[in-house]
Amino acid sequence: MEITARSLADLLNGEIDGNPDAIVNTIAKIEEGKQGALAFLANPQYTKFLYSTQASIVLVNKGFVPEKEVNTTLIKVENAYEAFAKILEFYQNSIPRKVGIHSQAYVDETAEIGKDVYIGPFAVVDKNAKIGEGTIIYSHVYIGENAEIGKNSTLHSGVKIYNHCIVGNYCHLHSGVVVGSDGFGFAQTTGQNRKKVPQIGNVIIENNVEIGANTTIDRATMGSTIIREGVKLDNLIQIAHNVEIGENTVIASQSGVSGSTKIGKNCMIGGQVGIIGHISIADDVKIAAQSGIGKSIAKTGEIIQGSPAFDIRDYQKSYVLYKNLPKLNERILFLENELKRLNEKNI
Amino acid sequence: MEITARSLADLLNGEIDGNPDAIVNTIAKIEEGKQGALAFLANPQYTKFLYSTQASIVLVNKGFVPEKEVNTTLIKVENAYEAFAKILEFYQNSIPRKVGIHSQAYVDETAEIGKDVYIGPFAVVDKNAKIGEGTIIYSHVYIGENAEIGKNSTLHSGVKIYNHCIVGNYCHLHSGVVVGSDGFGFAQTTGQNRKKVPQIGNVIIENNVEIGANTTIDRATMGSTIIREGVKLDNLIQIAHNVEIGENTVIASQSGVSGSTKIGKNCMIGGQVGIIGHISIADDVKIAAQSGIGKSIAKTGEIIQGSPAFDIRDYQKSYVLYKNLPKLNERILFLENELKRLNEKNI
Amino acid sequence: MEITARSLADLLNGEIDGNPDAIVNTIAKIEEGKQGALAFLANPQYTKFLYSTQASIVLVNKGFVPEKEVNTTLIKVENAYEAFAKILEFYQNSIPRKVGIHSQAYVDETAEIGKDVYIGPFAVVDKNAKIGEGTIIYSHVYIGENAEIGKNSTLHSGVKIYNHCIVGNYCHLHSGVVVGSDGFGFAQTTGQNRKKVPQIGNVIIENNVEIGANTTIDRATMGSTIIREGVKLDNLIQIAHNVEIGENTVIASQSGVSGSTKIGKNCMIGGQVGIIGHISIADDVKIAAQSGIGKSIAKTGEIIQGSPAFDIRDYQKSYVLYKNLPKLNERILFLENELKRLNEKNI
Repeated sequence: MEITARSLADLLNGEIDGNPDAIVNTIAKIEEGKQGALAFLANPQYTKFLYSTQASIVLVNKGFVPEKEVNTTLIKVENAYEAFAKILEFYQNSIPRKVGIHSQAYVDETAEIGKDVYIGPFAVVDKNAKIGEGTIIYSHVYIGENAEIGKNSTLHSGVKIYNHCIVGNYCHLHSGVVVGSDGFGFAQTTGQNRKKVPQIGNVIIENNVEIGANTTIDRATMGSTIIREGVKLDNLIQIAHNVEIGENTVIASQSGVSGSTKIGKNCMIGGQVGIIGHISIADDVKIAAQSGIGKSIAKTGEIIQGSPAFDIRDYQKSYVLYKNLPKLNERILFLENELKRLNEKNI
Repeated sequence: MEITARSLADLLNGEIDGNPDAIVNTIAKIEEGKQGALAFLANPQYTKFLYSTQASIVLVNKGFVPEKEVNTTLIKVENAYEAFAKILEFYQNSIPRKVGIHSQAYVDETAEIGKDVYIGPFAVVDKNAKIGEGTIIYSHVYIGENAEIGKNSTLHSGVKIYNHCIVGNYCHLHSGVVVGSDGFGFAQTTGQNRKKVPQIGNVIIENNVEIGANTTIDRATMGSTIIREGVKLDNLIQIAHNVEIGENTVIASQSGVSGSTKIGKNCMIGGQVGIIGHISIADDVKIAAQSGIGKSIAKTGEIIQGSPAFDIRDYQKSYVLYKNLPKLNERILFLENELKRLNEKNI
Repeated sequence: MEITARSLADLLNGEIDGNPDAIVNTIAKIEEGKQGALAFLANPQYTKFLYSTQASIVLVNKGFVPEKEVNTTLIKVENAYEAFAKILEFYQNSIPRKVGIHSQAYVDETAEIGKDVYIGPFAVVDKNAKIGEGTIIYSHVYIGENAEIGKNSTLHSGVKIYNHCIVGNYCHLHSGVVVGSDGFGFAQTTGQNRKKVPQIGNVIIENNVEIGANTTIDRATMGSTIIREGVKLDNLIQIAHNVEIGENTVIASQSGVSGSTKIGKNCMIGGQVGIIGHISIADDVKIAAQSGIGKSIAKTGEIIQGSPAFDIRDYQKSYVLYKNLPKLNERILFLENELKRLNEKNI
């Protein structure tokens, strides 16, 4: 597939600065660009690569003005990152999609399967489960009894959906994702013995949710664990029973949310963050990586860090002094000695 | 399924305060209770919901006395949480259990399968493996050669048990659990090359153990990695080779225990805790979430926090001062200035 | 299988101290050694067990001289750990290896399968995938379209290799490993909506790499995520899109590396470490467990700790003072009072 700068500019509603006949046939990062490749520049930190890249065409933001000579053809667009993503998507969509039920899949006769669904080898769709039209189910996926998967979603190889759980439309669940495992609930009985509390709720995942590889989402004890529309979860995240995560919230890898906690909309939570159970977190909150959240956050838009976490600027001020504790200690020692000297003198 | 307050009180050996003819047909949390639902109240933090709940019947502890008017029927029982769990269990047990070997499972002819076992589609039971009576093996489970699973255990879809590993009775292993993967052992040879040390031991999981989704337990280099009776492991936990976890110890999500460490009985370990290898931890120890344990804990019942961890009260005192380090620094600055002034005055 | 001390000494080029006719038929740790067992002693911390072990033969390092009477036969070798590993390997290799394609596997007709390959039940090898000679593919493994696996590698039950990813020779991938899931990349569009950025790169895993259970490695957005020769990754690790990990680097369990970060050769990274994206880390760097790395490390061989991390000795000095913050605070209080007293006196 070859395309010229002129056609690209038309497609992206952009403006050419350079050779309109430049041709590309592949896609690359600006720092790895070779002849025939299309790249993009959005993050100013990467501007330096523009002057040395071998890429034939580079998408840049409208306002961008190069400071040195450039050997590549620029196309100026409203939003270079987004335009590039559009091209990537176009590129990816050119791959033919899979359709049909593989002869070695197991689909229970009571299951309802929509139009244009793909079900791969050794996938299981159990009793009364429903799969919406256009959804792609790869090999080794398990869809439990009465579970429902919406339209145009993709479940990669090995995803496990326990019974009665619900996944929306346009979702991506990566390999090893577990949805609906039992919440971690035990009642202490005699002595130290613990009795399992049956977990009879489910998990509801709304539309446009992406869930990374090997992330686990426990079912509710009663009611539902809920992942709202547009949420993006990275790999190896733990979401406990009865948690609710608000619309468009993004959580980075290896973070964990304990039971019954409610997280607001549009939050951004870094990697390896731990959040205690039974609290609520306001909308638009940002949490730095490796933080520990031990109590509710009521203020919209708060930015916090630490374990337990507090205001990120205060945390960072404290941390600078933490690094300098040996100096602080020496200053106190000096003061102690000075005072001793003064006292002796003053006797 | 409908049941009256009177029948419930009989069943639970409880005392009715309200309408003995109140009827319930479902189960809910007290804060989400609707007409026809049974709820419970055990945690005093939830007492406020009792006065507004729409649930028709609420189980409460014997000693509980409402402070305001209550519109629901109360049943007073010895332990409201436990009684509720009993009802939940009853509810769950009313679901018919699966039995039989699915035609698309692979069970080696040398495997021994007990009575009333269920083996789902695409499950593998390899050479000389043994499955005890009443055990449920969901789809995509792998039971390696010579592995043994006890009676009445449940292995959810996608559990992997490597060869020679042993799982006891009444265990629950959730999807994605890996038991018996190789320990992380390498011998440094010439230069930086590392040679894999064969891992010829196994894993032994005793009775009544629950293991959360995607948790991994490595086999011993030699001998056994041992998970003792009644242990509860949450999701995404790492247990390294030759670790031993004592009876009834509970570990929350995303914690990790390094090689050859021995943990005592009845310990409670929070989420995202890291424990170094080759140490031992006494019984009844409690470790706060996100702590790092760098040396043995000899004292029974110790409660610790931090990375590295120390006494939890001392940790929290230090942390309060950590938050106030900028103020501490100002106080030192003030002292330095004062001293300078005094010194100048005293010359 | 029985072997005498004399034969072992010949095999390992060692020197006997004790009974050359001592016979062993199994392998054990020195602290668990029973009659008929072969053990080894390399770590001086374990020397105490030598005087009480029931093992019949113990491998020790050449220079080792016992301080007390020993009841077992010693064989002195150049490197006791390595010699023992060699014996372990010999022991393990005596287990017959699996060969052949199981009748219940699904291998696409366009796939290329090398000589002496094993493919277990319910494994999937998709279109145009290649499996090198001698490689072992256990049950429930998924090898996506156009993926390539080298020679003599082992993929344990449930490994998932997405399309176009490449795994080298002599690699071990444990159960639940995911290679090639989508990187966590979204373009913010209108409001808080995020649009998925297609991830069209792949993952390249070079030779002699070991990857622990349930570890996830995301494919590159464009280009490749690269795991260099000899790298050892423990369980539950997250490697994000476009990361590169240098030769022979070792990473312990539950650590995570964010997008586009480059890690040098021969690094040793502890457990539960978090590394931010878009940075580079020099060769031979050592990072203490639970550290957070927020910026590039340019200095070869640096040893760091903390979150954010800095020089390990400085960190530990600060941490000692952190533990003593209440005392530091008291010292400041004392100084404040003293100064007040002095000031009053001096008025």
